[in-house]
Amino acid sequence: MADMPVPEIGREGPLSGIKVVDLTRVLSGPFCTMLLADMGADVIKIETPGKGDPVRGQGDVVDGLSWYFAAFNRNKRSLALDLRAPEGKAILEQLIEDADVLVENYRPGILDKMGLTKERLGALNPRLVTTSVNGFGSTGPYRDRPAFDFIAQAMSGFMAVNGVEGQDPMRTAPPIADLIAGLYGAFGTVAALHGVTRSGGGQHVEAAMVNGLVSMFAFVSAGYFTRGVQPLRTGNDHPVAAPYGLFHTGSGEIAVAPANDKILAKFLEVLGLSEILDDSRYATNPERVKRRAELRIMVEAKLEADDAATWIDRLNAAGVPCGRVQSLAEVFEDDPQIRDQEMVLEVEHPGYGEVRMTGFPVKMDETPCVVRRPAPRLGEHTDEVLSALGYDADTIREFRQRRIV
Amino acid sequence: MADMPVPEIGREGPLSGIKVVDLTRVLSGPFCTMLLADMGADVIKIETPGKGDPVRGQGDVVDGLSWYFAAFNRNKRSLALDLRAPEGKAILEQLIEDADVLVENYRPGILDKMGLTKERLGALNPRLVTTSVNGFGSTGPYRDRPAFDFIAQAMSGFMAVNGVEGQDPMRTAPPIADLIAGLYGAFGTVAALHGVTRSGGGQHVEAAMVNGLVSMFAFVSAGYFTRGVQPLRTGNDHPVAAPYGLFHTGSGEIAVAPANDKILAKFLEVLGLSEILDDSRYATNPERVKRRAELRIMVEAKLEADDAATWIDRLNAAGVPCGRVQSLAEVFEDDPQIRDQEMVLEVEHPGYGEVRMTGFPVKMDETPCVVRRPAPRLGEHTDEVLSALGYDADTIREFRQRRIV
Repeated sequence: MADMPVPEIGREGPLSGIKVVDLTRVLSGPFCTMLLADMGADVIKIETPGKGDPVRGQGDVVDGLSWYFAAFNRNKRSLALDLRAPEGKAILEQLIEDADVLVENYRPGILDKMGLTKERLGALNPRLVTTSVNGFGSTGPYRDRPAFDFIAQAMSGFMAVNGVEGQDPMRTAPPIADLIAGLYGAFGTVAALHGVTRSGGGQHVEAAMVNGLVSMFAFVSAGYFTRGVQPLRTGNDHPVAAPYGLFHTGSGEIAVAPANDKILAKFLEVLGLSEILDDSRYATNPERVKRRAELRIMVEAKLEADDAATWIDRLNAAGVPCGRVQSLAEVFEDDPQIRDQEMVLEVEHPGYGEVRMTGFPVKMDETPCVVRRPAPRLGEHTDEVLSALGYDADTIREFRQRRIV
Repeated sequence: MADMPVPEIGREGPLSGIKVVDLTRVLSGPFCTMLLADMGADVIKIETPGKGDPVRGQGDVVDGLSWYFAAFNRNKRSLALDLRAPEGKAILEQLIEDADVLVENYRPGILDKMGLTKERLGALNPRLVTTSVNGFGSTGPYRDRPAFDFIAQAMSGFMAVNGVEGQDPMRTAPPIADLIAGLYGAFGTVAALHGVTRSGGGQHVEAAMVNGLVSMFAFVSAGYFTRGVQPLRTGNDHPVAAPYGLFHTGSGEIAVAPANDKILAKFLEVLGLSEILDDSRYATNPERVKRRAELRIMVEAKLEADDAATWIDRLNAAGVPCGRVQSLAEVFEDDPQIRDQEMVLEVEHPGYGEVRMTGFPVKMDETPCVVRRPAPRLGEHTDEVLSALGYDADTIREFRQRRIV
């Protein structure tokens, strides 16, 4: 057992007691394990001695600390371990024997090459849930292709439906293929743990970036499957509803989504344009879509009379979904709702001061997510983890000299 | 107990045995409960008699069946129930007493108005996990605003970072704010169920559309927090790397993501352009970003010599992430990887034939997700569910005459 004090754990999350061995790096895998850690799991992040997760040196590095790394590795512990050394591999296997979950985001096949085949993992720990987050899945003709968010956005069909007709198809700047895959990985992991609880047997869980995006098309894929036609790319306009989209007001633009006839009637009523619904040119949605440009002029002529904030209050009060296209400063500095929801956290990182990062997307009233610990320094918990495994201080010192830890 | 036969359940999922009372409609909530149902949970979808989920009449309806509805309600059972009738409410409460999870996506406060306050739910079932999926969260100044995917994309800051500088900010056509909130709701639900298993007490779980998107900015939010500057919108180009993006070949465009110096060197080597790295005008990334347009011309001059498929094979073999911007037809009809991953399902709907929909984004080897049942007809399982609750055939007939079920 440990002769180092185990750091105090704060309020317990629903996954408190679940042990996760984390072989991931960069983004999709670390996001998956952060979601588990935020829920209270004990995540041990295994990193190469002297190098660590490449993200430690990426993004905006302030005084030697990457805030990007900090934001995706909170609540984890770091163990520096050379997995090519026999002693390093033995330590990894000891951790796996005692773990509930192993998460990795290598290319498919790498875990096998490391000797951690399904058979070996099952022999070490028959209850283990092994979760893989990757680009294309671990079978099929593209399994060995290098994956990257932009490529997953391109190949999944996602880019081809975004943007404006006649211009390039459009990716999103945030790497949502990575993050959605990580989130599916976390969901699958926790679901699989329920199976373990009941039947006693673990299994392999996998979430791929392309598959994750493909699952997120909703009415867009349903429309394709029924009609077999690629939808026109309509930018911010709704393909089959008008008026709908971004509109200029007396001060700035607002997004308005009159998503059905009832809400449209409210929208027009607030604008003082109810009478147009009696006009055969605008009475039906197909007619309105044809005259989208005319309608925009009529709507904006009314909206010009007041500023964005006034219209937003007025329209929301009438039940019309609307809002500003907010900049990041407006979201993260000024938005009272974001503040209420604590979607910006300021986390004390010893030696670096307070680091700002986005908050917890899942709220729970009995065991709310908390930052129990900031993102770890490389190998910060090496001594603590090895002590708990039974290694004495001399052995750890020797491992460190030989750069095994 | 039931005097109707309970339909055979296929291979069990990890959530088999978990009972979910589903008060959701449209998209974010139904996606959440579908993810739970796909994992084996028994989801009872409660719908207004004679009307049902509005999505039953939306999207592309073929011979009276909405394929959009079918795609997001597989593996669920449907109970028609008038929740305004005292008998309807009593039946709902009976279901809640015996359930593990209640999921709703009303506007905040509606559940309270229905009498299902936190206190009442706790009295009915202290182990219950109650999950809310909504737009802005259930506290804060915007809690009562009507939510809609487009508005969440606008207000979260997501649109403001997508698209091309000098043009409008850009939403995605798929309603990802809805779906990400639903996925977070499913993850939070399953995590909370672990807490229940250990401590015996349920809790309230919440996932909001804006919060979900805010959590998905990765290096974009980290960059904002360190520098306090709105990033330029660079379309499909990488803000701080070049060459990177969409490039014309001899036949069509390809997306190429040379994400670090090592991969860039490989990319240039395959193109026969290695020598440019010795040229001071292109030796460093900041210089290359400044000369992005020149580099594009040089890269495309080389790429013109062959077709897209050849370059994709060649670049992937060299470890350079790349791929085509695929249309939906290319993804859903032709892509051998999508076929291998079974990301298109053909589900038999009795009376309607085979319905195509997207497949399961989480793969598991021991208990793979399966379609145990197609999306239900409105009230298809009313008799079965009420019989299991102890109602006899005469009472059910009376309820039906009075339109309570």
